Amino acid sequence: MNLLLIDQNDFTAPGKILISGRRFLQLRDVIKPQIGETIRTGIKNGNTGKAAVLEFHDDHVVMETVLDTPPPAPSPVTLVCAMQRPLTFKKILHGALTMGVKKIHFIHAAKVEKSYWQSAVLRDAELDLEIRLALEQCGDTVYPELEFHTRFKPFAEDILPQLVETSALALFGHPRATTPVPVPPESGSIILAAGPEGGFNEFENTVLEEAGLLPVTLGARVLRSEYAVTALLAKLS
Amino acid sequence: MNLLLIDQNDFTAPGKILISGRRFLQLRDVIKPQIGETIRTGIKNGNTGKAAVLEFHDDHVVMETVLDTPPPAPSPVTLVCAMQRPLTFKKILHGALTMGVKKIHFIHAAKVEKSYWQSAVLRDAELDLEIRLALEQCGDTVYPELEFHTRFKPFAEDILPQLVETSALALFGHPRATTPVPVPPESGSIILAAGPEGGFNEFENTVLEEAGLLPVTLGARVLRSEYAVTALLAKLS
Repeated sequence: MNLLLIDQNDFTAPGKILISGRRFLQLRDVIKPQIGETIRTGIKNGNTGKAAVLEFHDDHVVMETVLDTPPPAPSPVTLVCAMQRPLTFKKILHGALTMGVKKIHFIHAAKVEKSYWQSAVLRDAELDLEIRLALEQCGDTVYPELEFHTRFKPFAEDILPQLVETSALALFGHPRATTPVPVPPESGSIILAAGPEGGFNEFENTVLEEAGLLPVTLGARVLRSEYAVTALLAKLS
Repeated sequence: MNLLLIDQNDFTAPGKILISGRRFLQLRDVIKPQIGETIRTGIKNGNTGKAAVLEFHDDHVVMETVLDTPPPAPSPVTLVCAMQRPLTFKKILHGALTMGVKKIHFIHAAKVEKSYWQSAVLRDAELDLEIRLALEQCGDTVYPELEFHTRFKPFAEDILPQLVETSALALFGHPRATTPVPVPPESGSIILAAGPEGGFNEFENTVLEEAGLLPVTLGARVLRSEYAVTALLAKLS
């Protein structure tokens, strides 16, 4: 935890917060701040700053906060990612969020197993925890928007072209593409689409190209999805 | 498995191989090639090519190989990475190897727990399996050289300066650096050093700078080690 992410309802008085539960345990067992010591904090969707420990109790800590610094700038990338097996989904989500992505569309594709859509990681409480852990890791406060599209065609044919139209660059990873990832534009949003393990199929590749996405490659090597997405985001940052 | 990695002792006759054990199970249960079908293959430290299924038996498969294509070019990066907890070590190793890194020095640092050096993942058989899985994933055949340095100072003061001297670029990730990762040189080797969770300490940062490494940043966000190394390697590829 590199930032204590707080909510409006953590406040007991102006500038004064009470932290219990998971975050308290993290503070007590890992961060171990002394009374008077300050740690980095930030309020959901708002400023970051510092929190000083006032009182340490058995099951909660009382802190004083000053929140005067905007969170880091968001990534210009909107990620479109084929749904993945639960563990890979969590890794991709964590990587993208810690790299500042604020908008992700998870989509179906032919090589996505239907069971992935029933996974417990997609429940609101699980997703919320994954988002919080990522924001706490990277020192951000701004919640992402996640959308889930359980059918490929309606998303790729109806929604994607509109996204592409308003973006400065639109790409998708394609194993047989020869174009490397271009230098990102100085401004404007970027659409990046990443396939499932095994890649998009030929039909899907065609639909993505027709929607205006440029097929690009990371090179001759085939990376696992979570490494490929991280590498593509790094090249576009 | 995007490439069946074979050894000299898999050959029963010129061009003919017999595959059993883990790789056989992977073929039978995941890849499921038919008789006559070909899959990508490559021989350890040698060419890649194709293998056609001749016979499928209960516990082995017999295949015919043609190995006529060199493996993908290696990454110019020599990675110097602080030792990590076992799971993170495996993730960093996998990421670096699948991105083509062929030389990695794992080193001690103040924030590295001594117990990490006793981990089972460092046993030869475990390391060999991790290397094979990474080469099979990315379609490469060339084994990396891994070195382990259980003391920071002798490595950083005696070995690192020599590595830096023969490289075209030498960098290390530093949380408070303001220089972004530079565009990699057209040719020549690159030294990239990455710290433990929590970063190198002040003394270590100074030693690395004095050894000739440039402190660089990936931006305001703090990434988990495996994502940071992947992102740095992507920016240098």
